[in-house]
Amino acid sequence: MNYRMIKNTLGWIMVFESAFFVLPMITAICYSEWQSLLSFLLSASICLGLGLLCVYKKPQNSVIYAKEGFVIAALSWMVMSLFGALPFMFSGATKSFADALFESASGFSTTGSSIFKEVESLPHAILMWRSVTHWIGGMGVLVLLMVFLPLCGGQNMHIMRAESPGPDVSKLVPKVKQTALILYSIYLGLTVIQFVAMLISGMNLFDSINTALATAGTGGFGFRNDSFASATPAQQIIVTVFMLLFAINFNSYYLILRLKFKDAINSEVRAFALIVIAAIGIITLNIYESYGSVGEAMRHAAFNVASLVSSTGFASADFNLWPSLSKTILVLIMFIGACAGSTGGGMKVSRILILFKGFVNEIYALIHPKQIKKIKLDKRPVSKEVIRSVNAYIACFVVVFATSLLLISLDGKDLVTNFTAVLATINNMGPGLNAVGPTASFADFSAFSKIVLTFNMLAGRLELFPMLILFSPATWKKT
Amino acid sequence: MNYRMIKNTLGWIMVFESAFFVLPMITAICYSEWQSLLSFLLSASICLGLGLLCVYKKPQNSVIYAKEGFVIAALSWMVMSLFGALPFMFSGATKSFADALFESASGFSTTGSSIFKEVESLPHAILMWRSVTHWIGGMGVLVLLMVFLPLCGGQNMHIMRAESPGPDVSKLVPKVKQTALILYSIYLGLTVIQFVAMLISGMNLFDSINTALATAGTGGFGFRNDSFASATPAQQIIVTVFMLLFAINFNSYYLILRLKFKDAINSEVRAFALIVIAAIGIITLNIYESYGSVGEAMRHAAFNVASLVSSTGFASADFNLWPSLSKTILVLIMFIGACAGSTGGGMKVSRILILFKGFVNEIYALIHPKQIKKIKLDKRPVSKEVIRSVNAYIACFVVVFATSLLLISLDGKDLVTNFTAVLATINNMGPGLNAVGPTASFADFSAFSKIVLTFNMLAGRLELFPMLILFSPATWKKT
Repeated sequence: MNYRMIKNTLGWIMVFESAFFVLPMITAICYSEWQSLLSFLLSASICLGLGLLCVYKKPQNSVIYAKEGFVIAALSWMVMSLFGALPFMFSGATKSFADALFESASGFSTTGSSIFKEVESLPHAILMWRSVTHWIGGMGVLVLLMVFLPLCGGQNMHIMRAESPGPDVSKLVPKVKQTALILYSIYLGLTVIQFVAMLISGMNLFDSINTALATAGTGGFGFRNDSFASATPAQQIIVTVFMLLFAINFNSYYLILRLKFKDAINSEVRAFALIVIAAIGIITLNIYESYGSVGEAMRHAAFNVASLVSSTGFASADFNLWPSLSKTILVLIMFIGACAGSTGGGMKVSRILILFKGFVNEIYALIHPKQIKKIKLDKRPVSKEVIRSVNAYIACFVVVFATSLLLISLDGKDLVTNFTAVLATINNMGPGLNAVGPTASFADFSAFSKIVLTFNMLAGRLELFPMLILFSPATWKKT
Repeated sequence: MNYRMIKNTLGWIMVFESAFFVLPMITAICYSEWQSLLSFLLSASICLGLGLLCVYKKPQNSVIYAKEGFVIAALSWMVMSLFGALPFMFSGATKSFADALFESASGFSTTGSSIFKEVESLPHAILMWRSVTHWIGGMGVLVLLMVFLPLCGGQNMHIMRAESPGPDVSKLVPKVKQTALILYSIYLGLTVIQFVAMLISGMNLFDSINTALATAGTGGFGFRNDSFASATPAQQIIVTVFMLLFAINFNSYYLILRLKFKDAINSEVRAFALIVIAAIGIITLNIYESYGSVGEAMRHAAFNVASLVSSTGFASADFNLWPSLSKTILVLIMFIGACAGSTGGGMKVSRILILFKGFVNEIYALIHPKQIKKIKLDKRPVSKEVIRSVNAYIACFVVVFATSLLLISLDGKDLVTNFTAVLATINNMGPGLNAVGPTASFADFSAFSKIVLTFNMLAGRLELFPMLILFSPATWKKT
């Protein structure tokens, strides 16, 4: 294990994070929130100081292997969440460190589950910080690191692979640095477009920035107690569109920019579109009666489907009150989640596709035992390693899910609350149902449960393996 | 597709089924239930008549392939359930055919979910028939067929494989007929031992037969409204022991009879024991306060854990009222289910083991990419086909589960009810939680939902593939 390299990378993470504290500081100045300003200054200083201490000595040996890649990814996100929790503590916004850590990890992992029962009384700087964590977490801080850090060779790929969502990570261009730069440019570009769209819709500057940052990261922290229920229909529609856009594989945007439209609309995107359209259609029919007009029903259906399938977690209506069929569909799309390589969470559409195709092939193999079919995606056979890893991911998901469910059930809350709380955190969704529904918060869980759920959020954002590898004894055995 | 062979086998199924109607007829005579006697006579006549008509002409070509094996298995169970529903209709016990079919399929599939809100007013003959369906369903009627039918060659294996539970089916002895005979002898032997044990415990003859038949099949239909809540502690303990015994792979009993104790206690049995002991231990601690004494708490914990892990579905207490932790554990063991090759349902412990080992291997492979480890069970590597089929089974389970959940959510019941109703039927469990909890019934579902759940029960008993193959277009395409 290359400890120096790990220390060095973590140091850079802290340096980068301290830079991001600038945005809430500016907000604090604009709104004359001096106590908040002080908390952020203090947090930034600690973060920068420790970071510089770690990067001061450049490691002689910069070679890292796959396992270091996973360990770096897991530790980076833990360190980020840890320092990101400081302003919540220093400003007195949260009562306990477990709360602050939960909120911070929820931000970075783009979950958007909150321990705040109401947010309108929070300082603007704190609200801004919550949105900034979403934005950093969306595309990933390690990917950002690669744009700037002079790491050489194919080793970055180990880190990128550990941080990126989806069963298979491909470089857009031969160089990892270039790939990272392209991804972040598209990310920034889309964020700015949404920000401008929000301004045009009549939203004020502060709200527009927050909305764009939180949507881009598919995070879901709101700055109003009712999330987007009181936003205008036009604003709800814009947010719906962008939630869906940020749930699509960023490779597709790159391909569109290169005018390769056919390649851009790949089978995952098509499946995603199908799921979204079907879900919106059925829910619209199902809730039509309670809203009176098809237009309004469809707007709410689309908003909440987009919000949950992209794992954003904004809400335009309390879907806890919707009929069973709609709630069941919402729970199912929570499981499925967004496309691989997007900022969204969940199991990822491509995994579901591979799983489903494997099942169809198995049925075919049972009927025709002598014919062997390979699983194909976009006419290319899916490699054995990817199929194995998808299956391992499912097994991993089940293990983490069941363990978390047992641990938080010690609090004695009802099954639906526990089930959807675990689902919402692992899939980086935000709200669940019942006691963690869209109008409720995670405040009432015990500190122990909050830590379990914090682990889930980070594990979910990193697609489970890095966090499990970090805690696996085999990783730390000397070979 | 060898249609004549299918027709012939289905004919034998009907002939066999008509023979089993004798037991409820005798019951009807003993209790002077003449109307019931008439219903059973009529059902048996129809069953026997149609059956003889089908077997009258022996097919010239008796060769069948894997796909015919699956189709025969799926159709056999549908035919059995169909004719098994007749007495419920003729006697007027059920109001609609959907109800009668549900009850019959629930019996044969050893699910034990009932549409009867109370059973104590039902004729003894009907109660006996419900128990008999469990017993036939437990080991499987096709396995029984093989003991008697003069089918030759390795073709029987196709049928046996389609009907037997678990990821991998092995013959105990070279001949399928011998294997089937051994399995049924062990099954009958254990049933008789339990029957005697129940008599000794002070239970009357009728109750003892019913208890033994329903426990052996891990069915769960009760003959008292409160299931086993008012049985004596000794009776509850005997039933607990036998529910666990019937949840263990019958191959183990054969190995024990041949004094190969080491092979009998294989890794699946050990894992099963571990799960059961852990579940009982934790639930005992969790419910201790409400029962006052450790002994009573442990008895109830053991009874209900044994009942759900074996997928029997008897209840000694309303676990709906237990704390969250206990309920969560019960839901998890519902998923896991019994050992492969037992009469129990669920995903099967061996599948969970293979899944779990695959996940551990994947983590190891990510840490040490150059070392390849094979999944082993009892020191033997698990074949690729078995691993693939386990993964396909999981995918299949998810597809059937999600589809059923959506369809029955049209009834508008709450999520926990729907979720556990689907789980209880696919896993052949019996009761779920909330509106389908241990003290409730499935009566309030719509006819459509009942048919969906009936499909789930049969699909679950046959481990999903045969039913899906029956309805797959590829099966019926001419090649």
